[in-house]
Amino acid sequence: MQDNAIAYLLTQLNARYARSLDNGRLEEWPDYFDDACTYRVTTLDNHRRGLPASLIYAKGKGMLRDRVQALRAANIYEAQGYRHVVGTPLLELREDGMVHAETPVVVVRTMRNGDMSIFAAGAYHDRFLAQAQLRLAERVVVCDSSRVNTLLAIPL
Amino acid sequence: MQDNAIAYLLTQLNARYARSLDNGRLEEWPDYFDDACTYRVTTLDNHRRGLPASLIYAKGKGMLRDRVQALRAANIYEAQGYRHVVGTPLLELREDGMVHAETPVVVVRTMRNGDMSIFAAGAYHDRFLAQAQLRLAERVVVCDSSRVNTLLAIPL
Amino acid sequence: MQDNAIAYLLTQLNARYARSLDNGRLEEWPDYFDDACTYRVTTLDNHRRGLPASLIYAKGKGMLRDRVQALRAANIYEAQGYRHVVGTPLLELREDGMVHAETPVVVVRTMRNGDMSIFAAGAYHDRFLAQAQLRLAERVVVCDSSRVNTLLAIPL
Repeated sequence: MQDNAIAYLLTQLNARYARSLDNGRLEEWPDYFDDACTYRVTTLDNHRRGLPASLIYAKGKGMLRDRVQALRAANIYEAQGYRHVVGTPLLELREDGMVHAETPVVVVRTMRNGDMSIFAAGAYHDRFLAQAQLRLAERVVVCDSSRVNTLLAIPL
Repeated sequence: MQDNAIAYLLTQLNARYARSLDNGRLEEWPDYFDDACTYRVTTLDNHRRGLPASLIYAKGKGMLRDRVQALRAANIYEAQGYRHVVGTPLLELREDGMVHAETPVVVVRTMRNGDMSIFAAGAYHDRFLAQAQLRLAERVVVCDSSRVNTLLAIPL
Repeated sequence: MQDNAIAYLLTQLNARYARSLDNGRLEEWPDYFDDACTYRVTTLDNHRRGLPASLIYAKGKGMLRDRVQALRAANIYEAQGYRHVVGTPLLELREDGMVHAETPVVVVRTMRNGDMSIFAAGAYHDRFLAQAQLRLAERVVVCDSSRVNTLLAIPL
């Protein structure tokens, strides 16, 4: 598959991924990953130093589903709205057939009272196989901020 | 017409649409719509509940032109600058030949004194016929905020 | 070369350009320009009035490299993180073979303490020759804000 075809597929996945989260349809979120996936949220500091420490770590689609259930039970997600703005992916095709991609992302949060602010800025660092039905083998969300936001428990 | 060709056309329309508004060329704004268009601004809350209530409602290109004239007369638009960041459209081709599209958008406002803030976050919900000269049959701007900003009278 | 092929090349350049800056790899920045390039940062006010005044002005790749060295020496860049969100380019092909492009851009800044804010909003006004190895002949960063931020010394 050619570079620009893969870029198109990832851009479409990111658009659907963002819409699922921003429309509060959290149950759709695990389906963007493959069964043996890794999902992590970390800071730019940790990422640059090569530290494995994560704010959030989930291994396998089951853990993603558990997380969604926990968020539903805690009723955390409903109180405010999120809006993802996802940029242009940069791709690197590795010899093992895996694609590595880096994509900037900014998330705007809107509170019930109308206040809007930037909730997160950073980049998706993804690994996946190039195929028509794209599924993420790994998504590491690298946040520019090194302060842990307690609400980071929500999917980014 | 293929999906990605339609997506390209809408992306180009959105880029020109944003440039017209962000460069203060409001008079160009009605030309992105067809004659019998609907333009609405509503909140995510109303949208989810299926409520028809709108913060702004305009039916037909003439009403859009009237709105621009009113804004010029009131001299509201000049005092600050706006910058639209428009995301990737997600398309759905309906059987009646109409395309439905949902596209995230964030608008940054810059005040005369240099203060910058997020003015609006949300999504465009569009309906249009797939054709080379794309014109919007309907654009509903669904804002994440449920508080009415009095300046929402400007086109989004 | 066709419009959408040129748009793809510029979008890719912008994505790499943003990653270089946002990952603190300033030394890569001059390589996005050609040897006789012009790089300017100005305000929307100046731009609209056709005034040549610039907040930053650099002529030739050597001056861009000097600027990077100065920033490294002053150790300014490290204290916070930047994240560029670059929009869809609008192209105009001129008779002299040059392409003119206008592309919206918003830069989010994250401070060490976790505070995030919009650092800059505006547009890239570019000139370049359409060729596979794209290099900018001119990039004018037109900022919506008319207030000079002292940190604007960093590349945008």
